[in-house]
Order: sequence, then C-alpha cells, then structure tokens
Amino acid sequence: MALPAAAPAIVLVRPQLAENIGTAARAMLNCGLTDLRLVKPRCPFPDERANRAASGADAVLASARLFDDVESAIAGLTRVYATCPRDRDMVKPVLTPQAAIAATRAALGAGERVGFLFGAERTGLENDEVTLADAMVPFPVNPEFDSLNLAQAVLLVGWEWARAHDETPARRVRTGKGEAATKEEIDGFLKRLEAELDACGFLRNPAMRPAAVRNLRAFFLRARPNAQEIRTAHGMLTGLVERPHLAKAGKPRPGPRGREG
Amino acid sequence: MALPAAAPAIVLVRPQLAENIGTAARAMLNCGLTDLRLVKPRCPFPDERANRAASGADAVLASARLFDDVESAIAGLTRVYATCPRDRDMVKPVLTPQAAIAATRAALGAGERVGFLFGAERTGLENDEVTLADAMVPFPVNPEFDSLNLAQAVLLVGWEWARAHDETPARRVRTGKGEAATKEEIDGFLKRLEAELDACGFLRNPAMRPAAVRNLRAFFLRARPNAQEIRTAHGMLTGLVERPHLAKAGKPRPGPRGREG
Repeated sequence: MALPAAAPAIVLVRPQLAENIGTAARAMLNCGLTDLRLVKPRCPFPDERANRAASGADAVLASARLFDDVESAIAGLTRVYATCPRDRDMVKPVLTPQAAIAATRAALGAGERVGFLFGAERTGLENDEVTLADAMVPFPVNPEFDSLNLAQAVLLVGWEWARAHDETPARRVRTGKGEAATKEEIDGFLKRLEAELDACGFLRNPAMRPAAVRNLRAFFLRARPNAQEIRTAHGMLTGLVERPHLAKAGKPRPGPRGREG
Repeated sequence: MALPAAAPAIVLVRPQLAENIGTAARAMLNCGLTDLRLVKPRCPFPDERANRAASGADAVLASARLFDDVESAIAGLTRVYATCPRDRDMVKPVLTPQAAIAATRAALGAGERVGFLFGAERTGLENDEVTLADAMVPFPVNPEFDSLNLAQAVLLVGWEWARAHDETPARRVRTGKGEAATKEEIDGFLKRLEAELDACGFLRNPAMRPAAVRNLRAFFLRARPNAQEIRTAHGMLTGLVERPHLAKAGKPRPGPRGREG
C-alpha cells in the first residue's frame, strides 16, 4: 500500500492524558498520518508518557503543533470534520467515517487541506467547536456503549484512510515458496492414491467407490495444494505403503493394522 | 444499528499488559462483541488496571474465560482467523479484515462459531498457533510502521464487524428540529433580499446584476436552509433595513455605514 503525502490533519482538542496523545500518534503513523495538532492539552506536553505510548512514533509527537484554540488550529485548513459519538442537534451534514474519508480524498486531490477534530476524553467537543466544522462524523458503533477511547477514535479515521488506499485483494492464498500445483500433478497423485486404496481394499465396495473417489478429489482440490505439497503427499503415500524405514531395518512389514515389536 | 447476538469470539494469546486487556474489552463492547477468551495472560487477571482501562466494559471482563493454550480456547469453534501484522510464509488463505468479517457473517448465519486470534504485544502469534487458523488476517496499514497496539488491532476487527452491520446512509443532513424549507419559502426570501439590494443600490450595475443574483441564489441553495433558518434570515433582513430597535429608542436612523453615538 502506498500512502500519499497529502493527508488529513488530526486535531486533538484539550486532550487530558499524555498516554492517549502517544497512542493516537502511534495509530496515526500506523495509518500513514503525521500532521498532529493539539489544542490546549490539559496534560504536560511534550511528555515522556506520550513518547512511551507512541511505541516508536516519536516523529509524529516531535512535529506536533500546539494551539490556543480550535480556530487557530484549523485556520489554514479548507475543510474540517468534527468527530463525535453521536450527532448533535445542529443543521449540518452528517457523514459516516468512510464517506468523510472519501470526501477527504477528493478534496485533497483538488488541493484542499483537511482536518479531523477530536474532543477531550470525557467532555468531547463543545457545541461551538462542532459549529466550526463543515460536517459531523459520528462513529456508528454499539448505541448502548458508544464512548470510544480517544486514540481508538483517531485509529478509526486513520484506518478508513489506510483502507481506502489499500489495493490488496480481499482474499488471496499465500502459497509460501511453493508454486501452485498443476492439474496434471494433482491428478497424478490422486490416481496413485486411488490405486493404492484399491489395492489395500479400502475402495472394495463397488457401489460406494464412485462417490468416495469424487469426495477425495473434491477434498484435495479444495485444499489447493502447491507442487511441493503434492511431492510431500507422494512421499507420505510411499512411506505408508512401502514402509522403507522398517524394510531397511530388516523388520517384518506389519499388516495394515499391525503394530511394531 | 442493531448488532446481532451471534458474534465472533476474541482470543488474546499471552497478553502482557492488563491495561491492554481492558482497552480491548472496551473496544469489543463498543463494537457489540462480548466473547473474550484469554490464553495464559502474562499479567494478573482479573486486575483492577484492566477494569479501569475498560471504562465501563466490566461485563466483558467479568465473563472472560481463561485457557492454557490456543487449542483449548478454540476447541468449540468451527472457524478461526489469525490476525498478524503481515502474512507469514505459510500455505494459507490471506483475507483483508473486511473479507474476514464478511466470511464470518456468512459462517455465523450458517450456525458456525468463529473466533479471531491476537498474539502478544511484542511477539505476536507463534507459527504453530497461526497454523491452527483457517486463514491469516493481516492489517494493510503503513508498511513502514505496521505494529498495532493490541487493543487497536481488536478494535479494527470490531469496527469491521460494526461497520458491516451499519445501515446509516453515508451522508445525510442533520436538520435539527426545523423541517427543510420549501422552494417557495426560499424563493420568497431571495426575492425580498433582491428587492432590498436593488433599493440600497448594491445591484445598481445592470451588467453585473444577473450574475450577482444567480450567485446569491446558488449560495443559498447550497446551504440547504430549513424553514426556521429562512424565518431567521427574514428577521435579520428586517433588522438590517428597518433597524426597529434604533427607531423605537427614538435615535436617528444612521446611513448605510453610519455609526451610533
């Protein structure tokens, strides 16, 4: 994922805990955001507790800017979103986080500068501060327990930002170092397995045989083996049938359910 | 948003910090998840620090279950996802968090029981533990700073769960108590404003007048006023033009740019 340099600013208004500023900075950098603005923090800042909580995102804290009020913090921006647990009784657009990020991407692409406001841990944003924003962005979570930790709220905006830029396919198969097996390789193993199962009597019921063989094939295809795994499967089959280790040691070959010793 | 009762379990493997267990529990309840399982926590549990960090999600902590290993914790589940910062070199499906949640919803709907594994803060899941999972779920974040706080990772899974159930429209306008203004109400105000602007000479340039009137109308429509706001606008216009307060006080009516006193 390539995260673009033009990204929204995160404005924390009167944060109370240095730890939350640090965890918010970590969440920002996790998601490729670096422009942190603090309005009148109620805790010391800079502070060692913030740096510890940032777990390596110190650069975000070092470049954070302090402001006396929200107006100054957003003065250079062209578009501001106020995050809030639920929407206020105010005539103002309300966007989901994903819609706000979609609008942010479009605005940044047109040269605008965008920021997200986050209120203090306990009290949130004041109505006058929400009024400064172009839109409200509530988080549609559990209505019976909707108070998000400050850094968690920052993460959700960051996550929507990173997620919107992510181009990984929704589902892929990590095949490790092995390349996917060809149909011929899979078929070759299945034919051999079938023959051995015929030989040992497992497929002796002619009425059941066709379905059993089909199920076996369905199972193997579902697992999507790679070439190395087919080679391993051949090896296992050889081991089970020929017992070369026992043969080499000169021990008698036990029957299908026989035991050593 | 109505969050369903059948929801995935969150399995924290060897968590190190009680605070993280608490914050994870809070994030879970924020997103409507309540089934918390702890495998060999390395911190005391239950613990007051976890409850403080849970900020009210104590019920999730109280019902959390302790296990000695991952196998026991997932024994009753039918489908398990291993979250990890990046995918391992293992032949296993890799899903984005949103794809894993989509598959989870489908599986729960079919009566399956699903869980997500989260490794310890510093060390993550061991390869043998990832092997127990049906698929890996990495978080596609900033590749240069991809280590998520444990509770933040839990929140991202929870958020995708809540987000998948959210039916709020992406964008709506919160109109407070006022109902949207009709076209007639808006038009009535704009005609009156136009007449006053003609009367005071603001629209005196005939070449500029049509564009000025069109721009004014575009501005008002873009703001999507409600009926109350149109009444307020009428009141403001009356105030500016008739200055009833000054007239009542018997003071001389000042000119357009006159000052009191």
